[in-house]
Amino acid sequence: MQVGLIGLGKMGYNLAENLMDHGHRVVANDINKDQVQSIADAGATAAFTLDELVDQLQPPRTIWLMVPAGKVTEQVIKQLAHSLDEGDRVIDGGNSNYKDSLHHSKYLKEKGIYFFDVGTSGGTDGARQGACYMVGGDQEQFKQIERLFADTAVKNGYLYTGKNGSGHFLKMVHNGIEYGMMQAIAEGFEILDKSPFDYDYQAVSNVWNNGSVIRSWLIELMEQAFSEDSNLDSIKGVMNSSGEGKWTVESAIEFEMAAPVIAMSLMMRYRSQENDTFSGKVVAALRNQFGGHDVVEK
Amino acid sequence: MQVGLIGLGKMGYNLAENLMDHGHRVVANDINKDQVQSIADAGATAAFTLDELVDQLQPPRTIWLMVPAGKVTEQVIKQLAHSLDEGDRVIDGGNSNYKDSLHHSKYLKEKGIYFFDVGTSGGTDGARQGACYMVGGDQEQFKQIERLFADTAVKNGYLYTGKNGSGHFLKMVHNGIEYGMMQAIAEGFEILDKSPFDYDYQAVSNVWNNGSVIRSWLIELMEQAFSEDSNLDSIKGVMNSSGEGKWTVESAIEFEMAAPVIAMSLMMRYRSQENDTFSGKVVAALRNQFGGHDVVEK
Repeated sequence: MQVGLIGLGKMGYNLAENLMDHGHRVVANDINKDQVQSIADAGATAAFTLDELVDQLQPPRTIWLMVPAGKVTEQVIKQLAHSLDEGDRVIDGGNSNYKDSLHHSKYLKEKGIYFFDVGTSGGTDGARQGACYMVGGDQEQFKQIERLFADTAVKNGYLYTGKNGSGHFLKMVHNGIEYGMMQAIAEGFEILDKSPFDYDYQAVSNVWNNGSVIRSWLIELMEQAFSEDSNLDSIKGVMNSSGEGKWTVESAIEFEMAAPVIAMSLMMRYRSQENDTFSGKVVAALRNQFGGHDVVEK
Repeated sequence: MQVGLIGLGKMGYNLAENLMDHGHRVVANDINKDQVQSIADAGATAAFTLDELVDQLQPPRTIWLMVPAGKVTEQVIKQLAHSLDEGDRVIDGGNSNYKDSLHHSKYLKEKGIYFFDVGTSGGTDGARQGACYMVGGDQEQFKQIERLFADTAVKNGYLYTGKNGSGHFLKMVHNGIEYGMMQAIAEGFEILDKSPFDYDYQAVSNVWNNGSVIRSWLIELMEQAFSEDSNLDSIKGVMNSSGEGKWTVESAIEFEMAAPVIAMSLMMRYRSQENDTFSGKVVAALRNQFGGHDVVEK
């Protein structure tokens, strides 16, 4: 089917190619005109503005956003709302906060436009070769666009998750779990590194991926990383984050429930971004005050 | 090759069958005589005592223990030490503490007996269909018995990890990572359960296993568990533990390093075993003392 795609970054560009591989006709837009030209050379129809994109799509239009969550997504949705017609559909495939998605679905619904909040996992390779989708939105309308997900996901790699918000919420929790799994793996390798034994981490990752309880894609990725840099000597242990771990913890707090491992994983990321901490100074100062223990001077 | 197997519990019995599938001749012993008879009916040679087992093996003997870690393992190794000859080999395939394994290797080495500490992962199905082994011990001797591991593991599912202790240490850390991954998955599903959305957990596990970043054997097991009990209504959330998570945290403390997620996962297991806590009473009492806040009376 015909689909408008907005956002040709790493995810969106790969998705455009993936869609075209499956016979879909893509009208593509990005603020970067080189990216638009590049995907047009690969077979898509170029749209250098949002208006051009809307004009080139047959109603009812289906427009898939793969743009940064937050302000940019909001801006694009507001702009689209003015030019789209009743019955058109907007898919947000980015990592939006599910509360934003609830607002967007309500806002678009007032204009008769259907909204789908689609959590997308699997990374850039997934977008190209087969992603994993969690789709919230109107169930009848979902059936009209189901082919887009079925064709570009891995086998059984998409799920209709219920009403609006449920897709991005599920993706958020997926990422929260991911934070905890990653921190657990990380701590395990650090214990190996501090042990009296001499392990080949690539070989360890490999054997753990063959028959062990923790076999997983994340351990496969570690095998790949250790194959490129056997002791990770070339990188620093600074762990950035993009928001979904934080929102998962915010949800746990909103629901007044314990999620200590996901919360701790998030805070270890924050800690990794500091060279020194004020809390460390406070503990050092207190030990010095009550026990005369040495402090490390600047 | 010929191998003596001691311990015909869930792991050992399956391993015996797995070994025989691959043409190995198994002499099998267990304190439960019915188990010995049962595996003998399946093609093994019965040994109703350790002496019978030793007598029926050609030197240099290879004896594989699949008995409970701790006292039982220690007892069996001490008993074997008296009847084995120089050049014989003892494999401990159980979940022994690596420090015990260091003692056992030293103890047996004094008698000229080779010891292998073999971390075994993959559960009971793994023991039957293909396990994952992490093997510490003498490298030259390892080559003599490598076929046993190669034949009963999944493809690429065994690794020689170095000197004695390194196999069980690696398995211990594997289990520590497993604790963290499990707790992260658990917290994620609890957030879904407390959310305003209505998810089908079996379907969620399924889609997460198809193309998502957290795809893993543990999520596959959750899909299976939810297929049997869609909301886990039939079980209580009591989380037991068998030792290796605790030892992983002990190692982190010994190495004076931060492993907060694995430590927290362990402590959440302990918390789950209590109906009430003294720490909870202390906080309730303090809130009552300073702020007159209500306490829940017994």
